[in-house]
Amino acid sequence: MLEKLKEKVLQANTALEDFKLVTFTWGNASGIDRDSGLVVIKPSGVSYKELTSEKLVVLDLDGNVVEGDLKPSSDMPTHIELYKHFPEVGGIVHTHSSWATIWAQAGKPIPPLGTTHADYFYGSIPCTRAMTAAEINGNYERETGKLIIETFEDIDYRQIPSVLVNSHAPFNWGKDPQEAVHNAVVLEEVSKMAFHSLQLNSVLESMDETLLNKHFLRKHGVHAYYGQKR
Amino acid sequence: MLEKLKEKVLQANTALEDFKLVTFTWGNASGIDRDSGLVVIKPSGVSYKELTSEKLVVLDLDGNVVEGDLKPSSDMPTHIELYKHFPEVGGIVHTHSSWATIWAQAGKPIPPLGTTHADYFYGSIPCTRAMTAAEINGNYERETGKLIIETFEDIDYRQIPSVLVNSHAPFNWGKDPQEAVHNAVVLEEVSKMAFHSLQLNSVLESMDETLLNKHFLRKHGVHAYYGQKR
Amino acid sequence: MLEKLKEKVLQANTALEDFKLVTFTWGNASGIDRDSGLVVIKPSGVSYKELTSEKLVVLDLDGNVVEGDLKPSSDMPTHIELYKHFPEVGGIVHTHSSWATIWAQAGKPIPPLGTTHADYFYGSIPCTRAMTAAEINGNYERETGKLIIETFEDIDYRQIPSVLVNSHAPFNWGKDPQEAVHNAVVLEEVSKMAFHSLQLNSVLESMDETLLNKHFLRKHGVHAYYGQKR
Amino acid sequence: MLEKLKEKVLQANTALEDFKLVTFTWGNASGIDRDSGLVVIKPSGVSYKELTSEKLVVLDLDGNVVEGDLKPSSDMPTHIELYKHFPEVGGIVHTHSSWATIWAQAGKPIPPLGTTHADYFYGSIPCTRAMTAAEINGNYERETGKLIIETFEDIDYRQIPSVLVNSHAPFNWGKDPQEAVHNAVVLEEVSKMAFHSLQLNSVLESMDETLLNKHFLRKHGVHAYYGQKR
Repeated sequence: MLEKLKEKVLQANTALEDFKLVTFTWGNASGIDRDSGLVVIKPSGVSYKELTSEKLVVLDLDGNVVEGDLKPSSDMPTHIELYKHFPEVGGIVHTHSSWATIWAQAGKPIPPLGTTHADYFYGSIPCTRAMTAAEINGNYERETGKLIIETFEDIDYRQIPSVLVNSHAPFNWGKDPQEAVHNAVVLEEVSKMAFHSLQLNSVLESMDETLLNKHFLRKHGVHAYYGQKR
Repeated sequence: MLEKLKEKVLQANTALEDFKLVTFTWGNASGIDRDSGLVVIKPSGVSYKELTSEKLVVLDLDGNVVEGDLKPSSDMPTHIELYKHFPEVGGIVHTHSSWATIWAQAGKPIPPLGTTHADYFYGSIPCTRAMTAAEINGNYERETGKLIIETFEDIDYRQIPSVLVNSHAPFNWGKDPQEAVHNAVVLEEVSKMAFHSLQLNSVLESMDETLLNKHFLRKHGVHAYYGQKR
Repeated sequence: MLEKLKEKVLQANTALEDFKLVTFTWGNASGIDRDSGLVVIKPSGVSYKELTSEKLVVLDLDGNVVEGDLKPSSDMPTHIELYKHFPEVGGIVHTHSSWATIWAQAGKPIPPLGTTHADYFYGSIPCTRAMTAAEINGNYERETGKLIIETFEDIDYRQIPSVLVNSHAPFNWGKDPQEAVHNAVVLEEVSKMAFHSLQLNSVLESMDETLLNKHFLRKHGVHAYYGQKR
Repeated sequence: MLEKLKEKVLQANTALEDFKLVTFTWGNASGIDRDSGLVVIKPSGVSYKELTSEKLVVLDLDGNVVEGDLKPSSDMPTHIELYKHFPEVGGIVHTHSSWATIWAQAGKPIPPLGTTHADYFYGSIPCTRAMTAAEINGNYERETGKLIIETFEDIDYRQIPSVLVNSHAPFNWGKDPQEAVHNAVVLEEVSKMAFHSLQLNSVLESMDETLLNKHFLRKHGVHAYYGQKR
């Protein structure tokens, strides 16, 4: 069942380690088959090296396990919440990658300070508000998903494919699991560079709006001209 | 004698280098067999690459060598002191890993700033007071152990499995040598992230108490639900 | 056609990854054959691992493709502008290497703070002014080239072989593609060290002029005596 | 001639790259045979990978080449000056390793902030004064050596085996080339940690004198008890 998607999700999880985005098992990737509405996700606490296609867990959008012997990632309800509300998302990646987590712990959004950022993110990468005690003590992981959706009320999730969960760490998404991993790598690099640029120049604010537009649209707009794909 | 424990201690020492927690021979791992009360520890000044099971030193809890031709790690009396006072500890790891040592040199405890910290440490990671001249000029390494125990007077060592020794470096422990290594890796990452989050946001204090509880207990409490083990 | 130059350009592009100057495809190297006035450059969006001699694009100095099936790097017009105005340049490298980009995002030139800098750069490494909306919305990549040339109005490009493009990233050059890569590596290290030296000593200004002269001329002047080449 | 020493010097130079202390050819190691008064040193501008025993240069203490077809390292006169004035030194290493160079560029000595430092350096690691124009324009590399000796007028070079040359980079020494490399590695790590400890705690001064004594003498004094050698 869903062999191709499983292969993609397996590779995405393995890639997290290759790109040095995870320590131990601190991260997980998932993918969704929009036709059947089924989600494939990493099992909880299993190392990337031990991971195989068979160990992946298949669930429906109500969180019921449809296939797999292992427990899904504890962050599964967050993934599902995002798939339900972000209809064009095909893959999700959660990590505790150092530099993005540093910003999440500081509770601050990452301002766009250069074209590297603008090539992927059409504005600041938001940081959620802190969760309430009720949210934390309730269905915590699902509430995390709801909080992300609340954070994107006035933001187009297709143009800002990452979020920092306050005092926690980032979530990233894309049209498939591979693009979500790609965005997680970019987020990490952008987080590292913004941190240091601000140390060099503490009065720095957002980059020029025209330059932000130019770079985002050069790669993502209707008139995009980067790469070989058009 | 104690072949299984020796194998664990050997692997724990080798892992220190694999996880980039040590420069040269600046670190050591030990394990204890609670039935016999015997401790297996790295010999002093021997490189991790040269280390074999046969080179490990076996001692009783009075510090007498029971087996082995080499001198034990100079930090041995600290390990023994901890084994005597922390009855559920089965393995101890000492390193001079960069980021944890940076905090130890600054003489500051590491506040919990995010869920990565909360997943492993149920509160601040303490830094000992400075040692007195009498302690330093006395049985120094044993006094280091006593100082750690004093520091944990009001802290549950099972919930905070690491300490920073002031102007020195960290000690970490766990139910066995492997868990002590694991905690040493987490400490290093948590130290690095807390350092930078505080640079980004200097007024940052401890994370929300409810979130700290949630994450620590999600992994460690009676109702833990992370991983596959239950 | 231009097989030797293609080999050099191929190796220069591959070297960007080996020297950890690039993430994904965020960088490109080119070379020029001054006799024919033809430029060889990396195709847009192709990974360094997939790159072969055959995939490189050959263009004339008006930007017309003379050979190659793929689209050239989107930064191609910047490269061409530089080749037209810097007659002794034989190779150009553009990256988003972290430390140099951190300075570019901060909009600050890199002051010479030590002999490592002075061995390669005869003074500050300039950062361009911000681009105007007209420049960004016009022929953007060509305007980037013009802006670099404007920045070097009173600077000898042979003595300062790198520039930071404001809110963007660095461009580097040299007598051939290999030297451009070499300078890109030096720029990255110099950027990293200057950043941290300024954190240690915030009143630091440029290094002693006599020492700057000595080191630059020891390696680059008529009386250079470093290395084996004379 | 001097085959054993050449082998040691060759390995020391190669080790500089293995320990990531050098970029390109920015570093050199030498050794001296005290019986003959002959020095073996790396040739100038040769990469570590190309280096062989045959390419090393042998000189007397007046700087005359006794064997070897290549030009010696341009820093050779500094090495010779140090060998002449530090009679117990058997090996010297010069690098532009990042963290030590960051301190040298800042023109600041590295205070002892923890036991890692104290295990190798019996106090602050000094930074020389800036050189005068006359020194720079004179026999520059020899004057660098003289300046280091001046800096150690009231410091025992056997207890502080490294120095930061102002606006330049470190020199390190030891009883043989291998110990000089070892000290260069320690210097780099100590430089990195001191930098960050001071960022965390800006009022930090030198560590406790008794603890400094204890750790230095535990490894280096008559009553040393670290390692297996006694």
